[in-house]
Amino acid sequence: VWASLAVAVRAADPGGTLPILSVAKGIEAETLLRPTQVLADALGGGRPLCALAGPAIGPEIARCLPATLVAASPDAALAAAVQETFSTDYLRLYTNGDLTGAELAGAAKNVIAIAAGILDGLRCGDNAKAGLLTRGLAEIVRLGTAMGARPETFYGLAGVGDLITTAISPVGRNRSVGEALGRGRKLDEILATAGHVAEGVSAVRGLLALAARHGVEMPIAESVRDVLFAGKDPITAISGLMSRSRKPETPAVSTAAPTR
Amino acid sequence: VWASLAVAVRAADPGGTLPILSVAKGIEAETLLRPTQVLADALGGGRPLCALAGPAIGPEIARCLPATLVAASPDAALAAAVQETFSTDYLRLYTNGDLTGAELAGAAKNVIAIAAGILDGLRCGDNAKAGLLTRGLAEIVRLGTAMGARPETFYGLAGVGDLITTAISPVGRNRSVGEALGRGRKLDEILATAGHVAEGVSAVRGLLALAARHGVEMPIAESVRDVLFAGKDPITAISGLMSRSRKPETPAVSTAAPTR
Repeated sequence: VWASLAVAVRAADPGGTLPILSVAKGIEAETLLRPTQVLADALGGGRPLCALAGPAIGPEIARCLPATLVAASPDAALAAAVQETFSTDYLRLYTNGDLTGAELAGAAKNVIAIAAGILDGLRCGDNAKAGLLTRGLAEIVRLGTAMGARPETFYGLAGVGDLITTAISPVGRNRSVGEALGRGRKLDEILATAGHVAEGVSAVRGLLALAARHGVEMPIAESVRDVLFAGKDPITAISGLMSRSRKPETPAVSTAAPTR
Repeated sequence: VWASLAVAVRAADPGGTLPILSVAKGIEAETLLRPTQVLADALGGGRPLCALAGPAIGPEIARCLPATLVAASPDAALAAAVQETFSTDYLRLYTNGDLTGAELAGAAKNVIAIAAGILDGLRCGDNAKAGLLTRGLAEIVRLGTAMGARPETFYGLAGVGDLITTAISPVGRNRSVGEALGRGRKLDEILATAGHVAEGVSAVRGLLALAARHGVEMPIAESVRDVLFAGKDPITAISGLMSRSRKPETPAVSTAAPTR
């Protein structure tokens, strides 16, 4: 696929100056590369690359419902051009220079959304789901900062924004797979009847490989992997997350100086 | 109310050393004080104070569904004691030294939840709702950091966690008031039939007074105030938010150095 795409792009743009906007989300399984890194690898370096990120469930965009997106590129002029080109009455775009963070956020949120879906399937309620999304965000931020991304990106539309949509929309594919798991169905049976790909199922191993490479702990992603591929019971996985040792909320929390 | 509470507390604890755990959320309208500041004011300073924060819709806690909370206090020993006391199989508590941030987050999220409810009432979809929550979080962080709180607190359970639950739970009071507004009902008629207090309705003016004092822009909270109290049409308010000038996602975004 990549080889034939590369041939087509080189034929259309022999100079290699045409900018490319990626709308893909994920991590390549073998190489652990992000989509624009795969594009750079397949097409040759030096070409201006930008990624579109943020909460954008397709059927809603198609109905022209309002949405906010991020045009992420280290090339500020390209990000601004994408912002200008795609802005409409119902689409509001922000620029962001942190391409690494925007793409990592887009891949990782699908894994956390599976976990959120498991909670839905177990009927754990909205407190549990919000707590899981918050702690999931914290582990994405840990990995992202270790990889050189900016924490602010994960607190923005590409991170928390996309995570919320993916985890609450009834049509979210990853959330739906999680919900079926939480109701006791098995992965192969879910995927056989789903008729679509849930990106988080393929992304979880790549995400955990990146976490291992950067020495980062991702307990929620590990639980999702164990439920998906090691036959771990969802209730056991959730109980395990709840009964970890008691901690401060952030590792660097300052409790010495009164803040009032 | 406060005077008689103060008398009762002083009678029970004449030494003034008994710690007090606040579970209230809001900003006092006239003084712009947070709940533990009101307690310190009413009971005299020096008493150890802690606030419980995080996603905790009451009916779910009552059913022993799993939840995660934050015990916030500048007094690390008190926060740890609250964590120890309230932890159960289904309640997981984290400690946090940032009492200012935890309390401000708890008050501000109710205002943003009204805005999220307005989107529900207008049937704007989950992309718009996630975008609004993300941009709402950004304006809470702007105010909080100006007030000396730690940004991390707003990205944790007291902030993004509580914001998500409040904005997605069907039983959330502030979200429900917003949904009725979005469907075209008027505030006085909603409050007359609701049979409960929606804290965000009383908090929005205090929040904007704090924002003005600290020179912080809060466009979503301003829109909520205008819909609630100035008869602004919800669709006009939302369109206004979507058509603001095009911007980078964070003011300090760095686009100079490639991040790949």
